[in-house]
Amino acid sequence: MADDLGSGDTAESVRRALDRVVFFSDAVFAIAITLLVLPLADAHLTDENLARQLFALWPQVFSFLLSFVVIGLFWLSHHRIFQIVDRVDRRLLFLNLLVLLCVAFLPFPTAVLGDHGSQSAADVLYAASMSLLGLASAALWRHASHRHRLIPAGFDPAVIRYITIRSLLVPATFIPSIGVALVSPVAAKVIWVLTFPLSTVVDRWAAPPGHR
Amino acid sequence: MADDLGSGDTAESVRRALDRVVFFSDAVFAIAITLLVLPLADAHLTDENLARQLFALWPQVFSFLLSFVVIGLFWLSHHRIFQIVDRVDRRLLFLNLLVLLCVAFLPFPTAVLGDHGSQSAADVLYAASMSLLGLASAALWRHASHRHRLIPAGFDPAVIRYITIRSLLVPATFIPSIGVALVSPVAAKVIWVLTFPLSTVVDRWAAPPGHR
Amino acid sequence: MADDLGSGDTAESVRRALDRVVFFSDAVFAIAITLLVLPLADAHLTDENLARQLFALWPQVFSFLLSFVVIGLFWLSHHRIFQIVDRVDRRLLFLNLLVLLCVAFLPFPTAVLGDHGSQSAADVLYAASMSLLGLASAALWRHASHRHRLIPAGFDPAVIRYITIRSLLVPATFIPSIGVALVSPVAAKVIWVLTFPLSTVVDRWAAPPGHR
Amino acid sequence: MADDLGSGDTAESVRRALDRVVFFSDAVFAIAITLLVLPLADAHLTDENLARQLFALWPQVFSFLLSFVVIGLFWLSHHRIFQIVDRVDRRLLFLNLLVLLCVAFLPFPTAVLGDHGSQSAADVLYAASMSLLGLASAALWRHASHRHRLIPAGFDPAVIRYITIRSLLVPATFIPSIGVALVSPVAAKVIWVLTFPLSTVVDRWAAPPGHR
Repeated sequence: MADDLGSGDTAESVRRALDRVVFFSDAVFAIAITLLVLPLADAHLTDENLARQLFALWPQVFSFLLSFVVIGLFWLSHHRIFQIVDRVDRRLLFLNLLVLLCVAFLPFPTAVLGDHGSQSAADVLYAASMSLLGLASAALWRHASHRHRLIPAGFDPAVIRYITIRSLLVPATFIPSIGVALVSPVAAKVIWVLTFPLSTVVDRWAAPPGHR
Repeated sequence: MADDLGSGDTAESVRRALDRVVFFSDAVFAIAITLLVLPLADAHLTDENLARQLFALWPQVFSFLLSFVVIGLFWLSHHRIFQIVDRVDRRLLFLNLLVLLCVAFLPFPTAVLGDHGSQSAADVLYAASMSLLGLASAALWRHASHRHRLIPAGFDPAVIRYITIRSLLVPATFIPSIGVALVSPVAAKVIWVLTFPLSTVVDRWAAPPGHR
Repeated sequence: MADDLGSGDTAESVRRALDRVVFFSDAVFAIAITLLVLPLADAHLTDENLARQLFALWPQVFSFLLSFVVIGLFWLSHHRIFQIVDRVDRRLLFLNLLVLLCVAFLPFPTAVLGDHGSQSAADVLYAASMSLLGLASAALWRHASHRHRLIPAGFDPAVIRYITIRSLLVPATFIPSIGVALVSPVAAKVIWVLTFPLSTVVDRWAAPPGHR
Repeated sequence: MADDLGSGDTAESVRRALDRVVFFSDAVFAIAITLLVLPLADAHLTDENLARQLFALWPQVFSFLLSFVVIGLFWLSHHRIFQIVDRVDRRLLFLNLLVLLCVAFLPFPTAVLGDHGSQSAADVLYAASMSLLGLASAALWRHASHRHRLIPAGFDPAVIRYITIRSLLVPATFIPSIGVALVSPVAAKVIWVLTFPLSTVVDRWAAPPGHR
């Protein structure tokens, strides 16, 4: 077992290694989610007709809200995964960095979507970025949970199944939306927004008792 | 009871789940409060008459200070709430994300207020954003404290009442200020600034002994 | 004794309250110190004569380095103070927010100094901002240590004296430099830079044995 | 032994001091790695031919990815070092601040590389910045591990040797690349990218059993 984390494998040192990974991840999530507002804060406005100009910023507000909610959901999912993981290996560290890379990248597609959402290219970039994040997050969970590699051996299989299904939800809607965006940017946005009620339905259906 | 937080409900794992929520929230508060300075740091200045140009930035400095203090107060309030909360459920996570959404949004109304504070639209946007944050924060506390849902059963009712009153203070002054701002941006600003001495008065009057 | 921190004053809950204050402060320090690079990262450059343009950015690099080191020193000092503080009261929370307000403000004077350092106004703004931070930090320590208000009763008086002297060092050089900057921006910068070797000398002279 | 960390040298207080250093460092790493996206998020784009404009941003995407991976590797390395360090002294604090200074500086060379990567000056700046970070990080490890100064006395020499070799890898490729960049910016970039497979090879060869 390669764990790459230095000295004595005491429970305490394993716990600290895990804490630091979680901490670093939380910080990246928190910063990325907060940087989403910068295109709004940097908008060029003039005193004249300010109210109308502020209303005209609704596409930027929409993409801020959408990305905030999606990153928030991924953070909850990351939270859920690392509640269960009880060891860290090198591959987990790399898959986690991949997730964080996708998260840190999101302010870019979010800004492009806010400014140019009527152009298919903006929507394709956005859907593709979110899909990559979803796949990276699913791979992280797959690595950790497969054959109970990094989670406790007797862990409730129903919860594992539930997290697996949840982890595939965003890829399941965002990957097809890449194709849709080429034809209709509006339809792509409808799909993205529908992902949230869908996630609630999936929770009702798939969550084991006590996790609803 | 749906707690959505994975495996065994040991005191230790509940504590860790709570810690991570608090940590993530603190990070978002800290980043949002620090990003407030960006409109100042990005101001276009020239060498000539620099002192006069710097003085002309006072509206930006005012909105920086105002937002810093308001976010600081909300952070103290969040701090106070999570000192008492001893469990996390799904709704708390969502209400907390709503609070953080409002916090992460604030650099936008703050920048608009700094640049266009003489226009009613800027003041309405600012007052409305702060009111939403106040309501979200009050809803978070209401959810946690109602029927001792997430706080210890025997917790001092006087402290609960105190935090409830505190949580309604910002909405109580900022919601009316939305209407005032339509008529007089200056009067709205006076109301906002008066919120701080008012909060001290409320503390004197409502804080239980030992919390003054 | 007003501690404003909710429920039972167990050692554990006091420790957690303190941890959260330290954490939030660290985050603000870390973000402010990292935002200092933005004026450099945003510099408008062209391909032609890039090397010469990069060298021409030395005033921005200087103000980045200076502010990084000063914030770093204040972080070390904050670190030192909160190693000793073992309780949190309301006034400590407010004084700490005042310190953080000054820290969060620094990217502004740093950017102005980088772009307009030859103008007295830029140097006065910088020296005044740093002086305020120094005074707020000294007030924080004074509040905590006076009559052992928030530190252990038997704490080594030599260490208290040492931290007090250290906390007055930046105000002692930066406040006079406000006046100097009005006459000579260059001389003000020399004073600021000399603060660092001076701090080493003070350490030699004032640090109790075992703290050198 | 000068430890500069205030009161009683209990295991608990040493642990807390170490935690705070690690925390502050993680925050700076996390912020710097997330700010790398700003040149992309701030890119000036128009609706017309958006797809083509997005593809034209590949140099900025390349420098984002490259810096993300390099900072990620340095974070892993920092992680590895502080897993072993079990005390903090003044010099460690200063060397760590030096590492963080280099990390916080990186968004600048990354932005310059993204915008002007065809110019030798941009590549020299980038290679030099990374080399400095590598040297600072190696000095940090050297200070901590030399004669087991800050690490447990009986710590496995094979792991120490492994971390030493790893800490010299980036300087070993980036310092020579400074000279290469003067002649060929493309060749310099090839060297940087080759550092990653090389690091995997080094791991195979140098990692002690159980750390592969």
